[in-house]
Amino acid sequence: MSLTTQTTPSQLADRFAAVRALSLALAAPLSEADTQVQSMPDASPTKWHLAHTTWFFETMVLEPAEPGFRPHHPAFRVLFNSYYHAVGEQHARPQRGLITRPGLAEVLAYRAAVDARVLTLLARNPSPDTLALLTLGLHHEQQHQELVLTDLKHLLACNPLRPVYRPAPGRGAGAAPPPPPPGWIEWGGGAVDIGHAGAGFAFDNETPRHRHWLAPHALADRLVTQGEFAAFVAEGGYRDARWWLSAGWDWVCSQQVRAPLYWQADGATGWQVFTLHGLQPLAAAAPALHLNLYEADAYARWAAAHSGRALRLPTEAEWEHAAVNASAEPPAGAPGLQDPASDWLHPQAARAEAGPQALPRLGQARGAVWQWTASAYSAYPGYRPWQGAVGEYNGKFMVDQTVLRGSSFATPRGHARLSYRNFFPAQARWQFSGLRLACDL
Amino acid sequence: MSLTTQTTPSQLADRFAAVRALSLALAAPLSEADTQVQSMPDASPTKWHLAHTTWFFETMVLEPAEPGFRPHHPAFRVLFNSYYHAVGEQHARPQRGLITRPGLAEVLAYRAAVDARVLTLLARNPSPDTLALLTLGLHHEQQHQELVLTDLKHLLACNPLRPVYRPAPGRGAGAAPPPPPPGWIEWGGGAVDIGHAGAGFAFDNETPRHRHWLAPHALADRLVTQGEFAAFVAEGGYRDARWWLSAGWDWVCSQQVRAPLYWQADGATGWQVFTLHGLQPLAAAAPALHLNLYEADAYARWAAAHSGRALRLPTEAEWEHAAVNASAEPPAGAPGLQDPASDWLHPQAARAEAGPQALPRLGQARGAVWQWTASAYSAYPGYRPWQGAVGEYNGKFMVDQTVLRGSSFATPRGHARLSYRNFFPAQARWQFSGLRLACDL
Amino acid sequence: MSLTTQTTPSQLADRFAAVRALSLALAAPLSEADTQVQSMPDASPTKWHLAHTTWFFETMVLEPAEPGFRPHHPAFRVLFNSYYHAVGEQHARPQRGLITRPGLAEVLAYRAAVDARVLTLLARNPSPDTLALLTLGLHHEQQHQELVLTDLKHLLACNPLRPVYRPAPGRGAGAAPPPPPPGWIEWGGGAVDIGHAGAGFAFDNETPRHRHWLAPHALADRLVTQGEFAAFVAEGGYRDARWWLSAGWDWVCSQQVRAPLYWQADGATGWQVFTLHGLQPLAAAAPALHLNLYEADAYARWAAAHSGRALRLPTEAEWEHAAVNASAEPPAGAPGLQDPASDWLHPQAARAEAGPQALPRLGQARGAVWQWTASAYSAYPGYRPWQGAVGEYNGKFMVDQTVLRGSSFATPRGHARLSYRNFFPAQARWQFSGLRLACDL
Amino acid sequence: MSLTTQTTPSQLADRFAAVRALSLALAAPLSEADTQVQSMPDASPTKWHLAHTTWFFETMVLEPAEPGFRPHHPAFRVLFNSYYHAVGEQHARPQRGLITRPGLAEVLAYRAAVDARVLTLLARNPSPDTLALLTLGLHHEQQHQELVLTDLKHLLACNPLRPVYRPAPGRGAGAAPPPPPPGWIEWGGGAVDIGHAGAGFAFDNETPRHRHWLAPHALADRLVTQGEFAAFVAEGGYRDARWWLSAGWDWVCSQQVRAPLYWQADGATGWQVFTLHGLQPLAAAAPALHLNLYEADAYARWAAAHSGRALRLPTEAEWEHAAVNASAEPPAGAPGLQDPASDWLHPQAARAEAGPQALPRLGQARGAVWQWTASAYSAYPGYRPWQGAVGEYNGKFMVDQTVLRGSSFATPRGHARLSYRNFFPAQARWQFSGLRLACDL
Repeated sequence: MSLTTQTTPSQLADRFAAVRALSLALAAPLSEADTQVQSMPDASPTKWHLAHTTWFFETMVLEPAEPGFRPHHPAFRVLFNSYYHAVGEQHARPQRGLITRPGLAEVLAYRAAVDARVLTLLARNPSPDTLALLTLGLHHEQQHQELVLTDLKHLLACNPLRPVYRPAPGRGAGAAPPPPPPGWIEWGGGAVDIGHAGAGFAFDNETPRHRHWLAPHALADRLVTQGEFAAFVAEGGYRDARWWLSAGWDWVCSQQVRAPLYWQADGATGWQVFTLHGLQPLAAAAPALHLNLYEADAYARWAAAHSGRALRLPTEAEWEHAAVNASAEPPAGAPGLQDPASDWLHPQAARAEAGPQALPRLGQARGAVWQWTASAYSAYPGYRPWQGAVGEYNGKFMVDQTVLRGSSFATPRGHARLSYRNFFPAQARWQFSGLRLACDL
Repeated sequence: MSLTTQTTPSQLADRFAAVRALSLALAAPLSEADTQVQSMPDASPTKWHLAHTTWFFETMVLEPAEPGFRPHHPAFRVLFNSYYHAVGEQHARPQRGLITRPGLAEVLAYRAAVDARVLTLLARNPSPDTLALLTLGLHHEQQHQELVLTDLKHLLACNPLRPVYRPAPGRGAGAAPPPPPPGWIEWGGGAVDIGHAGAGFAFDNETPRHRHWLAPHALADRLVTQGEFAAFVAEGGYRDARWWLSAGWDWVCSQQVRAPLYWQADGATGWQVFTLHGLQPLAAAAPALHLNLYEADAYARWAAAHSGRALRLPTEAEWEHAAVNASAEPPAGAPGLQDPASDWLHPQAARAEAGPQALPRLGQARGAVWQWTASAYSAYPGYRPWQGAVGEYNGKFMVDQTVLRGSSFATPRGHARLSYRNFFPAQARWQFSGLRLACDL
Repeated sequence: MSLTTQTTPSQLADRFAAVRALSLALAAPLSEADTQVQSMPDASPTKWHLAHTTWFFETMVLEPAEPGFRPHHPAFRVLFNSYYHAVGEQHARPQRGLITRPGLAEVLAYRAAVDARVLTLLARNPSPDTLALLTLGLHHEQQHQELVLTDLKHLLACNPLRPVYRPAPGRGAGAAPPPPPPGWIEWGGGAVDIGHAGAGFAFDNETPRHRHWLAPHALADRLVTQGEFAAFVAEGGYRDARWWLSAGWDWVCSQQVRAPLYWQADGATGWQVFTLHGLQPLAAAAPALHLNLYEADAYARWAAAHSGRALRLPTEAEWEHAAVNASAEPPAGAPGLQDPASDWLHPQAARAEAGPQALPRLGQARGAVWQWTASAYSAYPGYRPWQGAVGEYNGKFMVDQTVLRGSSFATPRGHARLSYRNFFPAQARWQFSGLRLACDL
Repeated sequence: MSLTTQTTPSQLADRFAAVRALSLALAAPLSEADTQVQSMPDASPTKWHLAHTTWFFETMVLEPAEPGFRPHHPAFRVLFNSYYHAVGEQHARPQRGLITRPGLAEVLAYRAAVDARVLTLLARNPSPDTLALLTLGLHHEQQHQELVLTDLKHLLACNPLRPVYRPAPGRGAGAAPPPPPPGWIEWGGGAVDIGHAGAGFAFDNETPRHRHWLAPHALADRLVTQGEFAAFVAEGGYRDARWWLSAGWDWVCSQQVRAPLYWQADGATGWQVFTLHGLQPLAAAAPALHLNLYEADAYARWAAAHSGRALRLPTEAEWEHAAVNASAEPPAGAPGLQDPASDWLHPQAARAEAGPQALPRLGQARGAVWQWTASAYSAYPGYRPWQGAVGEYNGKFMVDQTVLRGSSFATPRGHARLSYRNFFPAQARWQFSGLRLACDL
């Protein structure tokens, strides 16, 4: 599988500048200490994200392309390598937060120096390989931009002072009325083609496009809301083994889980939720988030028992097929994070559509929260990882991970595709992850 | 999904007697201490297996069917419940080995008492539900018969004296010449039907039969051998991150793994392997076993790099399709464990076929070792667990497990089907598990 | 420091036979499974105790003394070595319970064979060194006899069936009235001599006898009772950080401790306690036991706050001085375990003395429960470990252990001395350990 | 035990200003990130030290003394409470490094505000209790000043870039010739008085002064050097169980320890050691440091075997007696840290005395490195903790800790006394800890 792009050097230079600037904008409200600390092994410090994304351009783009390449700092090759064995050793992941030197200023200088070298390279008619790797580097940095927010939120939530990353840009979804029950987008089954096609960028794991047989099913036209999930909590959902996968129940019992991550009981008013805008009252109409697979799956089983319908999580093929065919894309283009200084950094209630719709629509397909599927993350038939070190990008994680589809409010605009395959372990709950129900027909 | 059977009470009584006797035969060579000890949380003591399989009949068959049912011992309901929350509490799994009372004699008495009650029930024209649950109980006990051997082998291997469960019944495969390279059973792709069909018994997870789209591929007509795996070891396979899934490499490094489980280096003669017949020289022609998913997958990647072919593990659908269509079944009927007092309890080299074959044949499909697939264990489209407590049998484990297909030398004869789905976590290596290669076409 | 004895070979042969017989008597009520299982890393299986004490005679006595010594089984040297690096490798302690072979019968045969060889050696006028090492071996086996009971009790207590090791030999202390408040044995302070003196056997850690300066103090003339400790529990002693050492409070919180080991709340009648005679009602008049240092120390602080007196644990020098001077020894000789088939295996209430006492008496100094002191286990001034492998017996444990003095109902008769220093880590609570209060004057 | 002082308010105000300034001087070379990160649960961030020492003055001094006291920030009471249960809840110790807000600037503002309030209080003729608690607060802050350096050194050492806290102020001890063998300060034994006496400040654990009986012994007149310890390493000291306490050997084996903390092998020149001045060649003449109790004790046993003398660690009473009587104090007054901007922050070789000495001298008694003793940390006879929350300062740690005596180059000048009792767990090696040999006579 070769990595290619059809974007021109000049277009790429513009995108490069914009993407790199967004990372800095995300870090802008933070102190040096905020950017330094690692709150758990799975999360990384903002400073590390800023450095690692730079390392990626330096190592994957500059090193093979610059004549007489010399590293910005020889130690960074190890220090900011995440998991590329082909590049060499890596600094231990759980110890990323201990690296106080280089300091933030040095990391920002590293960014600036690599930026200059990349732009110089782009101005010199680089090879198609360079352009392709640079394009990958941009998508890579966009992935880390979302992680900056999820990791930072986890850190701030560890602080009993409940620090505010940025004040809320408005009144929020707290007062929106709960939505009506979902409508269902039905499909009678049969062979469909799944996976990325066409000339645009896609990760190797979205290819090759291939045929898949779908059984008859329906997908809800909206996500499960916080209010709906609160009903599951209130009815004792976390105390009843019936709803849980075996490993999920072990997790609930051993961790004494009683509610989603970042919910805190407030005697007077019910639940408060910690957000990047500080503590907010639970917004019943907004999509549920910070669920792990166990919680998403348990909710579906509970909802099935209550409704008498064969509710479950959708498979990723069902999701992609519905998203492509049921006009998932809003007219205004793919949603997502654009300006961290003004955007909401918490999902809001879905807005009613302005007018009559010709087709059923897979609402909140993108730009709300990532949606757990019933599909384990595995290779598509005929899958080949990219050649070289970037072959480690996706392929080696294809075990014990589950696919999430869509994108979230924190996914940078222009990053996700309908064929996009996000993946996390079943117990991960610090991501912006929720669920949509499916139903056997 | 309803659980049914078409076997008559009288046939079932015969099968019941035979299955129950096999469990006792497995325990016959053991001391009370051997049957008592639990060598790791994943393994259970033989005594517990003897009691738990009895508990299953008592709880699932006798309790709903016997008028005025009274338990053999009230404490056994908790003590020998494995994981059925619908039945109530369970004794903690890692502490099964601490239960020295009831002693072995009491457990054997429990078996005899329940046997008598089951046979009495069968003689009184029981309901179809009872017959179906009894049939399930027999398959359940057969599963545990294989686990008796895997768990016991793990225990004996912890003993530096390398105790022998039973002397080898013959000279063994040590001297057999390595087989020629495998032949390839090719298939051009398209829609196929997968899953159990027909009237015989199957677990709920084998149903419903459903359509699946297969891409063009080929399957090797035999398993990977110990000799082939020894070449991977000799070439530094356990020291090269290239071949390993990320989680697999973490496992290799943190556990300092250098060879498959039960291999021990012998300066003079290469490898010795611990078997239920004691230490034996590594038999190059016999199938590799005690591999976990990481090891099976790493071997396939290494073999792909060496051969230049797109080698990989097969999906479970590819396996089932090939097995059904490529005359997997030997003429003499499904192989498997029949008499633990005389059978080999270690896989032997495949024997050459007696005569010309009309069709390509998926050799060693059953009765050798379980075969890891590339398929995560998940629900078939439209899957419904059985009603009642037995609904916990399979469904709640459908996350972070991988499917193995076929059966092993230790699978009791008559137990496995070509639609059978065994499953274990990726890191499990104490099962009789090996691999067959597949190839994209 | 040399190890010597003045006992004759013939006397030693008699003692040898008696001591070895007591170990067998302790194991007599047990099944093979009971003797096999290890319930936690700190506890050892009875079978291991039977084998290890035999290993000690074989390795320490026979090997240097028998001409042409040959081991009973070459693998036992490692398998049953506890912690003697000078002897060589040791089987990992937490895996003692996995060694199902040799079976109990083989271990008993090992005992018999070594017994015969030892008695043969004794009949041939052995060297003083041999006699001294044999004497040590007898004391060593007596130590393990008490451990057989503590370790076995822990195992049986892990079984929800609460198995009975042996029926109680009588009505028990349950109904005895609580004793009156303790009397106090006062001492005005000054230099005292501490440590073993004289010709009889003592462990190296009891020597050399040396001078020690004592401040004025008093010791209670009896142990703290179960009833007194129950008052501490009832008043929230386990929920109040004030009473606890910092490490003790961490232990209480992390383990969620609410009562002493083996106590179980019984709604109707208060507390039941698990004993080797099965569940028994808490006997208020009997000494508290199964306390660890944290619990003993916390009780003393709580009692100090309630009484307004400077109560605390005694130092080991205070204890020894009082025991030697305050007629601790009952007229009938040192108490302790004599016949496990008829003795109480649980401490009983102190009996009132028969007549007037000339001197104040340190009641329950021996034969009840071990008594935690305030003294860390450390070397006496001028301490030298024994020469050779037996130098590892005591000296290398002199850090992070606390001394217990006295002896318990389970200490074999004739084993303990007033200079005897038992020691365990602060958190150990499965021993027969309680406390006596001291007070600054 | 009451806490008193005889210093005047005006003198205290001067000392307060000086002590508080030293803390800021220690933090001066650090970035905000350096002050934020916690490298292990036992170590705390510099920012936390700055805040906690302020909390101590606010909570222990201002709160009881200021009329209408209001806290600087209500959340700080929990956030910066180390372990005082009497004050209330504490933020979890291992999560101190996650508190990025308040930021460093806010913590410095907190310091300034509390400083102003304390000085205001001092100007208003405060009560003796206030003066005494303020004095304690100054000693408390001095303790944390040394911890700032030990904890920071541990953090910087986790960074493969080996950051330099401050350049070395000179050429260092690397080239100094090894000192001659130590002289021995002998004492014939007998009763001595130990503990703090007099009017000056002392911690409660140094009192009451009491009588102690010493056996005849000798103490080396200097510390063990790096060069001497390097010989132990070179002779396989870390690979020979003979030298180690049992728990120490377990530690060596499980952690695969091969050399003292911060030593790194340098093929060309032997050992390099990480210091606060960066990597330095091992200075053979300087005292060994960063040893834990196991290492110090193992060295003594090894040295005993090599010398044939009864070498061991001194007891704390032996140390104190020798220090008081053998003119330990240099004429220029107690040494120690004075100016972190110019002082060596690594121990240097002892300098030869200028002229003839009238008395044998316990060289390097203070200002070099802390010296492990053979004494467990326990209460002196008649010990009473201070009243109130400060009673938790010392007393509740009196188990499983070992006393270190003397002081180190990093102990602030004026802080330590000859009766001073430092204490750490046996495995702690990140402190500035070394050893002096003692010998039985």
